[in-house]
Formats: sequence, structure tokens, C-alpha cells
Amino acid sequence: MEIINGGICAAKGFTAGGIHCGIRKNKTKRDLALIFSETKASAAAVYTTNLVKGAPLAVTKAHLMNGVAQAVICNSGNANTCNANGIEVAQEMAKVTADALGIDEDDVVVASTGVIGLPLDITPIKNSIGELKAALGNNSNEAAEGIMTTDTVQKEIAVSFEIDGVTCKIGGIAKGSGMIHPNMATMLVFITTDTAISPEMLQKALSQDIQNTFNMVSVDGDTSTNDMVTVLANGMAGNKEITAEGEAFDVFMKALNTVTVHLCRMIAGDGEGATKLLECKVTGAKDEAVAKTVAKSVICSSLTKAAMFGADANWGRVLCAIGYSGADVDVTKVDVSFTSAKGTIPVCKDGSGIEFSEEIAKEILLEKEITINVELNSGEGASTAWGCDLTYEYVKINGDYRT
Amino acid sequence: MEIINGGICAAKGFTAGGIHCGIRKNKTKRDLALIFSETKASAAAVYTTNLVKGAPLAVTKAHLMNGVAQAVICNSGNANTCNANGIEVAQEMAKVTADALGIDEDDVVVASTGVIGLPLDITPIKNSIGELKAALGNNSNEAAEGIMTTDTVQKEIAVSFEIDGVTCKIGGIAKGSGMIHPNMATMLVFITTDTAISPEMLQKALSQDIQNTFNMVSVDGDTSTNDMVTVLANGMAGNKEITAEGEAFDVFMKALNTVTVHLCRMIAGDGEGATKLLECKVTGAKDEAVAKTVAKSVICSSLTKAAMFGADANWGRVLCAIGYSGADVDVTKVDVSFTSAKGTIPVCKDGSGIEFSEEIAKEILLEKEITINVELNSGEGASTAWGCDLTYEYVKINGDYRT
Repeated sequence: MEIINGGICAAKGFTAGGIHCGIRKNKTKRDLALIFSETKASAAAVYTTNLVKGAPLAVTKAHLMNGVAQAVICNSGNANTCNANGIEVAQEMAKVTADALGIDEDDVVVASTGVIGLPLDITPIKNSIGELKAALGNNSNEAAEGIMTTDTVQKEIAVSFEIDGVTCKIGGIAKGSGMIHPNMATMLVFITTDTAISPEMLQKALSQDIQNTFNMVSVDGDTSTNDMVTVLANGMAGNKEITAEGEAFDVFMKALNTVTVHLCRMIAGDGEGATKLLECKVTGAKDEAVAKTVAKSVICSSLTKAAMFGADANWGRVLCAIGYSGADVDVTKVDVSFTSAKGTIPVCKDGSGIEFSEEIAKEILLEKEITINVELNSGEGASTAWGCDLTYEYVKINGDYRT
Repeated sequence: MEIINGGICAAKGFTAGGIHCGIRKNKTKRDLALIFSETKASAAAVYTTNLVKGAPLAVTKAHLMNGVAQAVICNSGNANTCNANGIEVAQEMAKVTADALGIDEDDVVVASTGVIGLPLDITPIKNSIGELKAALGNNSNEAAEGIMTTDTVQKEIAVSFEIDGVTCKIGGIAKGSGMIHPNMATMLVFITTDTAISPEMLQKALSQDIQNTFNMVSVDGDTSTNDMVTVLANGMAGNKEITAEGEAFDVFMKALNTVTVHLCRMIAGDGEGATKLLECKVTGAKDEAVAKTVAKSVICSSLTKAAMFGADANWGRVLCAIGYSGADVDVTKVDVSFTSAKGTIPVCKDGSGIEFSEEIAKEILLEKEITINVELNSGEGASTAWGCDLTYEYVKINGDYRT
């Protein structure tokens, strides 16, 4: 497996583009993105579990009933959620896109992200769809920018891999910075691949993968209304179609996982206001469920997040978060250490503090990527969660998001 | 019922005091508090559900097995939690207190609050216990200061009420500002009353009351390791002892509730870094459990809290928090409005946005106490939760708490 350039345009037969259509006032920021596959593709998706769901999700869900899609249209600046006419507008977005591309309306995936509860005006999208079609090309980065909200960096990646001697490619883009606390299904992520794989196996791969990737990310504990991850697989690589579990499926899963873990880390590291990517690695749990619960509890703790912002080795807050996680843990067996590029420092053994150099701890915690290692010494269960520190900037961004 | 002065010294037979003994470096801040009842008192307590529990809680629990206590000793600056010798030190605290006061060791309630994981040196407490005993008097405010950590205001209240023509008094002090997300039992709160009531009925009153008071408060979602609420009732008012449910018990419950709701609001309003007290009033829920879940979800949402800090009527975040709460809610029936001393403004009807004046909304949200009203239009269930806004200052306080 090899990391390559091209993002969502790395796989054969996929083009993408992004433009400013006018949903956002800031003209220098693209606000509409399009992804197009030359041929119909197997399609799979997972959605937010929030009861309040963006209208685009309902429309997309209906369109993907047959497991086939050919294009993705996504705007930023407005979530098209909690609006009386939301479904109508989302359907209209699919229609104008299908008409422009000459494809079936129900082969269009529709997504929106931005402010909740403001009616989305279809006019700028309608007026610009021709321009957007013309912008289609090897422009994964422009699409990645088009779906950004408070994100500060574009999030894309691609890898190439082999199935039965045939080179396949898979790539993805993501947006996500605030309101990030996926539950069962998550965020705005679009993945494209030229691997031949049936819709059923594609859905299976995606549903399985997100349990250990996107569902293990939290920026602020707020599960979004518009989260969605979709994969389009157009089969143009020419491998024998994957229709069951087996070696080829495993290889595909591994490639998919490389893409999703990379995007997870990018989303967590670019959490609103974040200065650091936090990773909590739990090992020695009674089972995987315990490890997951503990890892997420630590990564979600406001106090732990603020301590990491201050490069303060305040491990008592890690213990506290383990204790209230609800997981079955023997707190007298817990060991904690912090790791970064500068090394590792153990700070807690058997649930009690041990002597350590505050100076070395500070040096380790001043790095941009910190791993909080939690060894529960009670079994083989392991899990990793990703998050970020809590900063002044998070408060600033969210204190005046609309105004 | 009447609000009176005196805090925990308002009830007959109770004295209190607070001094600086040296646990904190800052000599201007009291760090040790003592509460004393002339006679043995009925005692009840509830404790944190965090699996990581401060050593003082284990000692207190053992001492209250017989439902009787006569004194409370509490230090701030160190939580005596996650220390190998924690139990020993907590027992020693009880012993030196009992010796100084000439009472039984197991009639002493022990509590500690502050940093987790640093061994607590008993020496300053031992050396100062005589001075602290001498400081006993009508000094509820000094004890209230002695238990403060990052609190910016002392929290105390007292009320007088009548049972069968006999005047009774009840008062309380509290500390709590960060790591506030009670679950089943909570925070550091000491309540004293001269009401005659059996230990069983006192425990019943307390356990019932906290479900709608302290368990409905959240500052940062982090459930503390050292939370505890205790009530001492020495019977010196001279009423006929309450030994069963009935009118007298109801009157006592009401007085207790007045004290606890007041302290809840003070704790939430003085949340770390808070500029505003937030109250979420949920009505029209299918049942009370749904109302509670929704109220707590809204009050805990970082995005809603940051929006309130910015006086931004971003009600989409309220809807979002309702949607991910896990409660059984029909989101198409939800109405939301904001209330403060400046008035009320409806912002969402039937789950969708309605037109409103941003100017008036801003004026309402710039006040110090904001109520978020959520009407679910699905039944009679109601509940209120208290919290605060999320501010730069919260991050600052917690980015360098230890250093």
C-alpha cells in the first residue's frame, strides 16, 4: 500500500471541483463542491444518529436505496436542517445537478453543512451548476475546500493498493472541526475508489470500519445533525468484483482504513481552536467495548483537554474520566503515561501517582501530537480514540459563529 | 418559609470556622474548615458515582454507617485522591479533629477537595487543629471560604420554617466550580439543621431531593471523584422527631429543597470561567425521565454554552443537543424560546426556525441569567437543569490549574 496524491480524483474515472456560488458572503471561500464518476458506482453510506437530521440526509438515503450513485453535490455555509422546506430544497439540489450532468436524479448524493435553521436558497446553486460542471477535473483540493466550514486545513488523502495483481486506488476528503462527536455514523466524508466491489460488500466494509475510526473521534461532544460518510466505488480499476468476504475484501478494508484513520486524525487535529491532536490509546481492557468507552471518555473530558492545552501533566483528570466513564474498570490497576515525539513519561501506576520530572513532562506535552496511554492491566481489549485540546479559540469560534 | 442569615450556623447548636493551615501556599486563602454540633446529630450523605473515589469518602461512609455525626472537617487545595496512603491520612484527619473536640472519631465527617494525585501532608492540619477549634463560632462564611477551590464566590444560604408551630432552621454551604457533572450523588455541600428527624428519614429526604437539584447541574461534564453532600440534623429546634412521611416531612423537604436549589444555582452561576447562569426548563415531555435527559443534554452542550457566552441566539445548537440526547422526542414538535430579565423571545416552532429580531434576542441574551425554554408538546413531563456558559476563562483556569 502506498500513499499517493490526488485525493478523491486519484481513483480512475473520478473528477471533482469546487466553486464559490454565493451561499457564503466571503467570495474567496468556495462553498459548493461536486464529485462525479464517469460510470455508475456502487455506493454505501452511514448517517448521524441524531434525531434531528439534515434534510439532505433523508434525500440521500432514498437515492442510495439501490446501492448505486454517480455524483455528490455538497454545499457549505448552510446545513439545510430544521427548515420547513428542507426536503424540497435538497431534492432540487439533486435535480439541478442531475440535469447538468445528464445523469439520473436518484444517482446524486446530496449533502449540506453550516448553520442550522436558516432556509437554504437554491438560487445560487441553480445559477452556478453549469460553472461547477465546467470546473470538474483533477481538483480534489477544490472540492475539499468547498465543503469546509470552520476547518482550517483541507483534509484529503489517497492510497494505491493491489487486489489480485490489479492496481486499485482509494481516496477521500473530509470536513469536520466542530460539532464532532460521532455516534454510529458520522461527519461529512466522501470517499471514491475504482475498486470493483458490490454495494452490499461496500456497505459492510464501511459500516465495519467506522466503528474504530470516525466513531472514535470527538472534538466537543456534540453529535452533528448532518454527519454522513459515503463511498463510491466505480469498478474502473478492473479487478474481479468483490462480492464476499475473503482476501480481496481484507485488502480493501485495509486500504479503506488507511484513508479513514488519516482523515480521523486530520479532523481531530483540526478541531475548532485546537493546537494539538490528542490520541488516547487504551490497552489491557477486559474487552474491546470497555477499551472504547474509556478511550472516548478520556478524549471527551473538558478538563483533560484544557490541561493538554496548557501542557500540564494533570493525569488525575485522566483517572477521573476513566472513573466516570461507566466502564467496568479496576481503578487500582490503571497505569498512565504520556507520549509525543519527545518521548514517553509514566505518571501513574496502579491508580496512584508516581514521581516524575515536571520539566520532562512539559517538554513532551508541548508537542503538537500527544498520545495518552492507558493500560488497564485486566485483559486484551484495546482501542484508540482521537480528539484535540480545548482552547480559547474554540470558545471564540463558537461564541460568535453566526454573527 | 423565610430566607435568613447565618448559613450553616443558623440552626441551633451549630458553630463553624475556617483558617489557613498551610496546605495552600497562598496565605490569604483559608484552606481548612470545621463544622461542629453541640450534640450528636442524625446524619445523611450521598456520594459521587465515579469509580475513582477520594479516600475521605470511604472514611466518611464508614463513619456514617450508624447515621450519627457531630462534626465535619474539610480541607481545600488537595483532594487526597489516587494516593497510596489516602485512607490513612483521611482517618488521621478524623482522629485529630475528634481529639481536639473531645468527640468520637467515627462521629467526624471527612472531606477534601483540590488537586488529585498529590499525597496530602497531615502535618499542617495536625498543627492547626487547636487554632481551628478556637475559631469556631458564628462563622459560616469562614468555613464556606475554607472549602473553596476555583470558586469565586462563597456559597451559603439558610431558611427558617415551622413544623407543628416549632421554628426550625436549615442552612448550607457549598463549593463547586469545575469538574461539576453530578451523577446520582454530588459535589461538596454541607447542610445543617436543628430539625429533629431520624437518620433514615434524613437520608430519604436527601436522596430524593438531589435527583432534581444537584444531579441536574453541570459545568463541564466531568463527574468529580470527591463529590459528597451531607446533612447534619441535631434536633435542637425541639420539634417532634420526624420518623415517617407526612406533613412535617413534606415541610422539611420543601425547606431542604429551597437550600439545595439555591446552592445549585450558585454553583452553576459560579462555574469555572462562567459569565452567565444558564437554566434549561423542559416542559411537555412524555415523562420526567425524558425531560431530565433533554434538559441535561442542552445544558451540557459545549456549542450551546459557547453561543450563550457570545449572546448568540443560535437555537440550532439547542435542537441539535435535544436530537442527540438519546431521549424519546418528536423533533417536529419542539418549540424553543430564550428568557431573561429583559423578556422572552421565541426562536423555534415545531422544530423549524421562525423569524425573530436578532437585536431583541441579543438584548435578552446579554443578561447574566438566561433560561432556555424547551416545550416538547408531547405530555406533562417537566424538569430543570442548571449550567453556565463556556468562556475563555474556563480554558485559562484549566490550562494551568496545577502550575
